Amino acid sequence: MSEHSARPAARGRAYQLVVDHVEAQILDGRIKVGDRLPGERELALRLEVSRAAVREGIRSLEAQGVVRSGVGSGPDAGTVVSALPSAALTRFLRLHVALANFPIPDVVEARVMLERSSARLAAGHGDQERLGPVAEALAAMDDPTLDQATFNALDTTFHIAIAEAGGNRLVSDITIAIRDAFRRPILEGLGLLGDRWPQAATRLRAEHHAIYAALVDGDETTAADLMEEHVRGAAQWLPG
Amino acid sequence: MSEHSARPAARGRAYQLVVDHVEAQILDGRIKVGDRLPGERELALRLEVSRAAVREGIRSLEAQGVVRSGVGSGPDAGTVVSALPSAALTRFLRLHVALANFPIPDVVEARVMLERSSARLAAGHGDQERLGPVAEALAAMDDPTLDQATFNALDTTFHIAIAEAGGNRLVSDITIAIRDAFRRPILEGLGLLGDRWPQAATRLRAEHHAIYAALVDGDETTAADLMEEHVRGAAQWLPG
Repeated sequence: MSEHSARPAARGRAYQLVVDHVEAQILDGRIKVGDRLPGERELALRLEVSRAAVREGIRSLEAQGVVRSGVGSGPDAGTVVSALPSAALTRFLRLHVALANFPIPDVVEARVMLERSSARLAAGHGDQERLGPVAEALAAMDDPTLDQATFNALDTTFHIAIAEAGGNRLVSDITIAIRDAFRRPILEGLGLLGDRWPQAATRLRAEHHAIYAALVDGDETTAADLMEEHVRGAAQWLPG
Repeated sequence: MSEHSARPAARGRAYQLVVDHVEAQILDGRIKVGDRLPGERELALRLEVSRAAVREGIRSLEAQGVVRSGVGSGPDAGTVVSALPSAALTRFLRLHVALANFPIPDVVEARVMLERSSARLAAGHGDQERLGPVAEALAAMDDPTLDQATFNALDTTFHIAIAEAGGNRLVSDITIAIRDAFRRPILEGLGLLGDRWPQAATRLRAEHHAIYAALVDGDETTAADLMEEHVRGAAQWLPG
């Protein structure tokens, strides 16, 4: 491999041809959710790679949730294109945020944008039933004996429930992923509060209740403004 | 393994254990960008899977841009955690939007939110130099002889350049991915315009120029409002 200095890992990348081929066909609309991919042999011939490379490429697509393998039975058991679940996006965005090392202020601005939008959408529905999970998280956080980790988990649930109540799955998928990616730094930040934690918890509870009241009132602008204030306020405690 | 009927595909999913393990360690902050993963043998022992499963898991992480393999040399050449490039997120979001079949109005609302934010950020910098690539795309689109595909490609470039001028990489990564995922449906929509295309192109050009003027003026609110109008207007031509 040492002679391929421009593409040092070229020999190991045959499976990438398979991944790229399938993805390009999906993006071009030539294959859709539910369609069966060609068999291993056919793909190997078509792309001039080994069958092992085809298997690796398929595995990789499978790990990303793009295809499901082993559908049907027999030697040509099919591989079918699957609708990526929201969980796949959440997982990927979480990893991306964890690895990409975005500056904290950038992430805060992105959260403000997303959570304003989620709050606005959730208030716009003015639907008590949809807000049920929001109310539940709110009530659970009122328990004064909660430790920080449990409080933080419920806080995440509260924000996710608002995003979901908004009813726009693309916005909520992205909002949830970014909120979730920050579960750990937020928890670290809370840990650094030390003695100031009970006071901070009181403030967070009050802010959550005010946001919920605006959602129930169907007051989109107030809900969005309170959410923005809340996200910016909590960001001050983030480490680093 | 056939006794594990509750996990029907368990035999094929050993590599998933490897993927999950590495991802959990990244999300917990136990391994960071630049860190070397344990060797194949050690991971196999630790997770009680075959070395083939470890290789498959690593390949899958590699295909997603999470790790780079073959760093260094010798039998234990390392696998290193890499910073996910923006391109990895764009690629994944594009696939997600292509496969997840979000309702068009949801995607339009998400684009309005993102592109308002991008326009506001780009105007906030009030920096002519940063807007250079925006101006270039604008000038190129003024050519009256452009076919629809070229116009659409430049249009994508225009929106991407605005997102990048905003300077928030997380917002721009998401904006670009969603705009890019819609390149094909938008092109289809333009194709359906038939005779009305020249008129539509005139309108798009005028809207683009007005947005650019607001960016140069540093007028954040006007830039955001014009962008919203533009995104909503163009959405009317989307197929379906």
